[in-house]
Amino acid sequence: MSYFNNMNQIKYEGSKSTNPYAFKFYNPEEKIGEKTMEEYLRFGVAYWHTFTEDLSDPFGVGTAIRPWDKYEGLDLAKARVEAAFEFFEKLGVPYFCFHDVDIAPEGSSLRESNQNLDTIVAMIKDYMKDSKTKLLWNTVNNFSHPRFVHGAGSANNADVFAYAAAKVKKGLEIGKELGAENYVFWGGREGYETLLNTDMKLEMDNLGRFFHMAVDYAKEIGFDAQFLIEPKPKEPTTHQYDFDVASGYAFLQHYNLQDHFKFNIEANHATLAGHTFEHELRYARVNNMLGSVDANQGHPLLGWDTDEFPSDLYSTTLAMYEILKNGGLGRGGLNFDAKVRRGSFTPEDLMLAHITGMDSFAVGLKVAQKLMDDKVLDDFVEDRYRSFNEGIGLEIVEGKTDFHKLEEHALGLTEINHQSGRLELIKATINQYLLRAYAGE
Amino acid sequence: MSYFNNMNQIKYEGSKSTNPYAFKFYNPEEKIGEKTMEEYLRFGVAYWHTFTEDLSDPFGVGTAIRPWDKYEGLDLAKARVEAAFEFFEKLGVPYFCFHDVDIAPEGSSLRESNQNLDTIVAMIKDYMKDSKTKLLWNTVNNFSHPRFVHGAGSANNADVFAYAAAKVKKGLEIGKELGAENYVFWGGREGYETLLNTDMKLEMDNLGRFFHMAVDYAKEIGFDAQFLIEPKPKEPTTHQYDFDVASGYAFLQHYNLQDHFKFNIEANHATLAGHTFEHELRYARVNNMLGSVDANQGHPLLGWDTDEFPSDLYSTTLAMYEILKNGGLGRGGLNFDAKVRRGSFTPEDLMLAHITGMDSFAVGLKVAQKLMDDKVLDDFVEDRYRSFNEGIGLEIVEGKTDFHKLEEHALGLTEINHQSGRLELIKATINQYLLRAYAGE
Amino acid sequence: MSYFNNMNQIKYEGSKSTNPYAFKFYNPEEKIGEKTMEEYLRFGVAYWHTFTEDLSDPFGVGTAIRPWDKYEGLDLAKARVEAAFEFFEKLGVPYFCFHDVDIAPEGSSLRESNQNLDTIVAMIKDYMKDSKTKLLWNTVNNFSHPRFVHGAGSANNADVFAYAAAKVKKGLEIGKELGAENYVFWGGREGYETLLNTDMKLEMDNLGRFFHMAVDYAKEIGFDAQFLIEPKPKEPTTHQYDFDVASGYAFLQHYNLQDHFKFNIEANHATLAGHTFEHELRYARVNNMLGSVDANQGHPLLGWDTDEFPSDLYSTTLAMYEILKNGGLGRGGLNFDAKVRRGSFTPEDLMLAHITGMDSFAVGLKVAQKLMDDKVLDDFVEDRYRSFNEGIGLEIVEGKTDFHKLEEHALGLTEINHQSGRLELIKATINQYLLRAYAGE
Amino acid sequence: MSYFNNMNQIKYEGSKSTNPYAFKFYNPEEKIGEKTMEEYLRFGVAYWHTFTEDLSDPFGVGTAIRPWDKYEGLDLAKARVEAAFEFFEKLGVPYFCFHDVDIAPEGSSLRESNQNLDTIVAMIKDYMKDSKTKLLWNTVNNFSHPRFVHGAGSANNADVFAYAAAKVKKGLEIGKELGAENYVFWGGREGYETLLNTDMKLEMDNLGRFFHMAVDYAKEIGFDAQFLIEPKPKEPTTHQYDFDVASGYAFLQHYNLQDHFKFNIEANHATLAGHTFEHELRYARVNNMLGSVDANQGHPLLGWDTDEFPSDLYSTTLAMYEILKNGGLGRGGLNFDAKVRRGSFTPEDLMLAHITGMDSFAVGLKVAQKLMDDKVLDDFVEDRYRSFNEGIGLEIVEGKTDFHKLEEHALGLTEINHQSGRLELIKATINQYLLRAYAGE
Repeated sequence: MSYFNNMNQIKYEGSKSTNPYAFKFYNPEEKIGEKTMEEYLRFGVAYWHTFTEDLSDPFGVGTAIRPWDKYEGLDLAKARVEAAFEFFEKLGVPYFCFHDVDIAPEGSSLRESNQNLDTIVAMIKDYMKDSKTKLLWNTVNNFSHPRFVHGAGSANNADVFAYAAAKVKKGLEIGKELGAENYVFWGGREGYETLLNTDMKLEMDNLGRFFHMAVDYAKEIGFDAQFLIEPKPKEPTTHQYDFDVASGYAFLQHYNLQDHFKFNIEANHATLAGHTFEHELRYARVNNMLGSVDANQGHPLLGWDTDEFPSDLYSTTLAMYEILKNGGLGRGGLNFDAKVRRGSFTPEDLMLAHITGMDSFAVGLKVAQKLMDDKVLDDFVEDRYRSFNEGIGLEIVEGKTDFHKLEEHALGLTEINHQSGRLELIKATINQYLLRAYAGE
Repeated sequence: MSYFNNMNQIKYEGSKSTNPYAFKFYNPEEKIGEKTMEEYLRFGVAYWHTFTEDLSDPFGVGTAIRPWDKYEGLDLAKARVEAAFEFFEKLGVPYFCFHDVDIAPEGSSLRESNQNLDTIVAMIKDYMKDSKTKLLWNTVNNFSHPRFVHGAGSANNADVFAYAAAKVKKGLEIGKELGAENYVFWGGREGYETLLNTDMKLEMDNLGRFFHMAVDYAKEIGFDAQFLIEPKPKEPTTHQYDFDVASGYAFLQHYNLQDHFKFNIEANHATLAGHTFEHELRYARVNNMLGSVDANQGHPLLGWDTDEFPSDLYSTTLAMYEILKNGGLGRGGLNFDAKVRRGSFTPEDLMLAHITGMDSFAVGLKVAQKLMDDKVLDDFVEDRYRSFNEGIGLEIVEGKTDFHKLEEHALGLTEINHQSGRLELIKATINQYLLRAYAGE
Repeated sequence: MSYFNNMNQIKYEGSKSTNPYAFKFYNPEEKIGEKTMEEYLRFGVAYWHTFTEDLSDPFGVGTAIRPWDKYEGLDLAKARVEAAFEFFEKLGVPYFCFHDVDIAPEGSSLRESNQNLDTIVAMIKDYMKDSKTKLLWNTVNNFSHPRFVHGAGSANNADVFAYAAAKVKKGLEIGKELGAENYVFWGGREGYETLLNTDMKLEMDNLGRFFHMAVDYAKEIGFDAQFLIEPKPKEPTTHQYDFDVASGYAFLQHYNLQDHFKFNIEANHATLAGHTFEHELRYARVNNMLGSVDANQGHPLLGWDTDEFPSDLYSTTLAMYEILKNGGLGRGGLNFDAKVRRGSFTPEDLMLAHITGMDSFAVGLKVAQKLMDDKVLDDFVEDRYRSFNEGIGLEIVEGKTDFHKLEEHALGLTEINHQSGRLELIKATINQYLLRAYAGE
Repeated sequence: MSYFNNMNQIKYEGSKSTNPYAFKFYNPEEKIGEKTMEEYLRFGVAYWHTFTEDLSDPFGVGTAIRPWDKYEGLDLAKARVEAAFEFFEKLGVPYFCFHDVDIAPEGSSLRESNQNLDTIVAMIKDYMKDSKTKLLWNTVNNFSHPRFVHGAGSANNADVFAYAAAKVKKGLEIGKELGAENYVFWGGREGYETLLNTDMKLEMDNLGRFFHMAVDYAKEIGFDAQFLIEPKPKEPTTHQYDFDVASGYAFLQHYNLQDHFKFNIEANHATLAGHTFEHELRYARVNNMLGSVDANQGHPLLGWDTDEFPSDLYSTTLAMYEILKNGGLGRGGLNFDAKVRRGSFTPEDLMLAHITGMDSFAVGLKVAQKLMDDKVLDDFVEDRYRSFNEGIGLEIVEGKTDFHKLEEHALGLTEINHQSGRLELIKATINQYLLRAYAGE
């Protein structure tokens, strides 16, 4: 049977195509520099938003029309697997991602939940044999169930800590079983509702212990995935410990975990924290901590996680610029942690939204590569900092100076010559590159 | 003499030109539908940001290098006029805008200030004879001087009210003298620092009286400019009475001023109020209150008025879409109420920034016109609301129904069929139109 | 049976009481000026947050432990009525409020839903005979069901408009049946997800027609409740038409509805719109549009509607100040549109949270009354605007002047004397009044 | 002569006093636990806001009336010293703070600037001999002058780096000369206008080098002040490297500077970064990095640094709670980095505003101490986390468990018992403590 039977296999048809079920810009085989688009972009489908999400919001119940919703329990879980692999194939995506509860229903006990997982993981493994789609990362949902009301690894209750650990243990085993390239930690309840009833030190210390045990266990079972922390500032908690990449990096250093983790950076989480997406990518990159990306976008005027499919070409361009500068994402990828709007409730919208996202990143990749090829920003930046290539600047960079020498230098200065930062011209140039992208110039 | 001597007359050279002092997309004579680009776009240069602004910010003094700054007092004012008209001509803009204090220094008395204004206005009038650049609008600055510390038309002090009125009287006379097409009111101090010491009712009533007197005086002297209110939510005050277009419209209706005013909508003010630029344009348009535009952009992550030159092509496209739907701006225009960044301090940056803004709106115009020509959004919207064209829908629209009939209709419904809102597809389509703009497709 | 059996009747025990189930500040019979606390404060319990809400959030399922949840369907609805009236009595609140779907389950058809409502409304009416608690207002939920995915009175679909009208018709009938003092409209889906697929003019026009039909029908059935619009800027939609009081007031004037409606102002909606709670109250008050209040509070650093129980004594003081200045709320009241935190999941928390809210407003009332009695702000404000009581100021206020006379006055001014606004001193004074409240000084 | 001649020596007169120039709550000699109020609170006056600030804002020139403004150049600088020490004495504050440019005018060369500093520093040192007021910290302003347009320690220009270093060198020498207890770094331009022209890695590396050289030089000259970093997210730059305490801590660890620095935490900077003031204090405290405090407050609805005098008693209470939990601030203090509103322009307002701030913190101290004495929060927190005191919880904390044991424990759990977080009750309790503060209960 087919769940997406009115959608044919999706191919690249070019921007003049009027077929909504066709890629206009994403051509997986197109060469961009050394690699193909597909190799660079490493797209992933988020199981939760695409196969589990019902499009409810805090003021309304679900609107999603999903043909598999006629099933229940494990049958529903199995139908979702079928739908998922049909979707992956038609869309031609190389990766997918999931939480434990996305793929299998929770049972009445941990043991039963694990059995459900075993059933579905076996089915997924079977499907993967005949599929080109691999597992970018998996994780466990330690935030939705009432048991996690006060946290998981940072809970005030040792039983909850243990339960969370048991779930991660299973998650690591599943990751190994399915060949996940990464394993993600998003601490949806790892933070506080209020400082007034919170022992922040104990909670953070426990979280540090939790992560160390996870590292140890992965090593023990030979699961060599890259561990990733996904920062988010707030929501559902009032304040989360992994507020942004910088706070996550402070945490990792403090608990001596920095060699075991990188970051999974989500665009919408970046903007909710007051940073641009590209800031978070850059900060992670220059600290050698860029692991993977949750490709979505937020609404700049809304104060919650809207998880929209990425369509802003400025954002995809600047993100791909950072990723290219990073030499790619390594084992990471671009996972569409994005959901269709509540008003886009048909199965077709799922396909259309992914096409929108993939085309948007394809354009971003082309523009970013062209900016790099032409050294548009590189030349400007290099020239801007050239004073550090010689004289006192070089001494600074090489650590050969001190306040005495610097003062002497400063006392001798008659004038300091500044260049304009030329922000307006740079923005105009990026617009020109963006518009030329389509023409292949 | 020349203040912009290293910049030649700026011409349209097309997007492949690498000359930074050339338009890549703005070709004033290019036909877009019935009119030329120049006729549609009606660009204006803001005197204050371009000729008076020193690029100081709350944490730093001015950085702007302006060749005319070697002069002082009235000589400086005169040099700025020379520089301005040289700039207007080289850039080829049809309009400019100013506050009284931008063009002439305040004297030690109102009388002396007015004399200074007379001197410079006469000079400007003279320059205008030989220039194609006209006055889009003028206004008076009733917010910078300490006398306006507690407001102007809404001040707690009747002397200040009178002083503000006298300045507007002079402003109206100047507008008439120079043939201004509009007259703008931005109430920088018309609001409150705190409600705790504020008589909001008296202040708003007085503001209503102030505007009526302005309307009367303009009529008296035969100055037929369109009056415009420019909303801004906050800054410099904690809360301004013209928070956004809707609150301005509530005010105008309450004081029976709605037939005498339209709105001058600034992009950055819109976003500071929690609205998109296009929302404010749409809201004004459907209420027949769209007058003119302050073309700039804010930074979505910064909480103050950054007044950046417009470069976001999504924003210029959606703005031009509203403007085209409005049948153009009438007597209004696109005034660049935008300043170069503090780090873009050279005279060249002034030119480059305007080119960036003009090119960005030129692209926006082309994309918007194409979206309209192809009825991309119109067809979708028309189809979406088609149920109001017949049956119970038509009765609703024609006012021929009531709750009894509607209940009867609802009781008879078995199912309500909804279509998807297709937001993701629409966004992808706009991206395609944007990228095709350059290729002229 | 009892649902709150471990909580005795709650009485005023004074601030030194350590009984958490006792009022520390709210003494319903205490005289404040002419009235008792109870008469001034007119507290209402929100049925939805207290008896229907499960404390789910977008990242987690419900945590609420509610003894009545062992029932289902109409039995659950009936159990909630029992619980509600037990709660009202123990808490001693004079009012409650509800949406249709809070009190009775939706049936498989409109007819069945109405039958369910009839059953429960009859039961509520019966309970009200023996209760001192009356209905402050009711409303209908035209936002949660998927049929309202694209709006209700502003839907793109005439069937939905009719359905929404039928629900409001029933709501008005219920309001009359139960003697509601007000009827509220909160347009949760009356706005847009995106302008790109929206006909804003038709939607607002239809909304205007909808309200007129509601006014007509209420008149027809002799339901004389005060109609109230409850503004909210965003959430669940991207942008709602009743963004704030000012935009609602613009709308009401435009559609000639201003004599039929007042505003129901929610603290958290105010802050989400960029206004303080007291701003919205003041703006409504001076325009004679203050109807009722949804008493809650938001978190200043969170961008969504947190609907917390009010505890901030500054906010309750300034709110009560506006309400006292308004001569009270008339038929309106203070409805706790507030929910306990997801971590406060016991039935006891419902009681504790209401006590917190009621005590907080009791303090606010006492402080506000004392500020008024001592004319702390009044004297300062009166002095600050005294220039409008004579001379040119009086002429301005009486409309006897014009720009000629004002200019003449301004030309004659040598100096304008300003007084300090003294914000810091005013804030210190309010702190002193707040701290003295407890001591009864 | 006297600059504050209508204000007598300010004394504690108690909350019933109606003398605006008297402390109502701050009684320096009152014992709070082991220490006096004065010893705990360690207030400091900010030279820049009190003696240099003119109250200009981006839309208006200065309004401040300062009797010393009749002087110019070095004479003005000297008059400010006189005014300052008169102010310190009348107010009875133990500390003050300054930037280099606050106390002495910049000369036409670095050498001349240093000479001006020497003159004024000598004068200050002389005044300090007869004063009880000491130097809490000093710093240098490396952000206002155009030379710092592109940064200081993170500038793109080696000459600027040298100049900034020379200024800090002088600042350290001045600190030593005047016995400063701390030395502060606020990187007003250490960030970026745009990533597009920025080499973030080089800039951060250079900043790391800069701080190491400062540490070395302080050691060299025997200046043993505590070094402090003051985070701020944005403004004047688009994004600053010391965004918040967490990002500063990440930076310090990365560059191995964490043993040489603590944080100077400003309330308004905290809220601009999306954190509560108490969050930043708590985070610094539990990481042993809490150094000093810039005591002010922001406006929760305004997006820029308003630097208001602290008056919110919730904020002062929660801040003092963290400070008491920290065992006090050590060498740090509560510096009023706060400015009077533009409308509060008289010299009297300076005094009134400081009294407001000092009284507000005095109340905060009393309430916080009482909350600690009564173990109101401590008991609740201790009980909430008690599961970590034995069994599996203790094993977790002691690092004696792993994922195997935790899974075994989780598999054996039948039910997890959660307690309510009781946020609403806690907030009510804090209100009671706050109101009782005045009565001394």
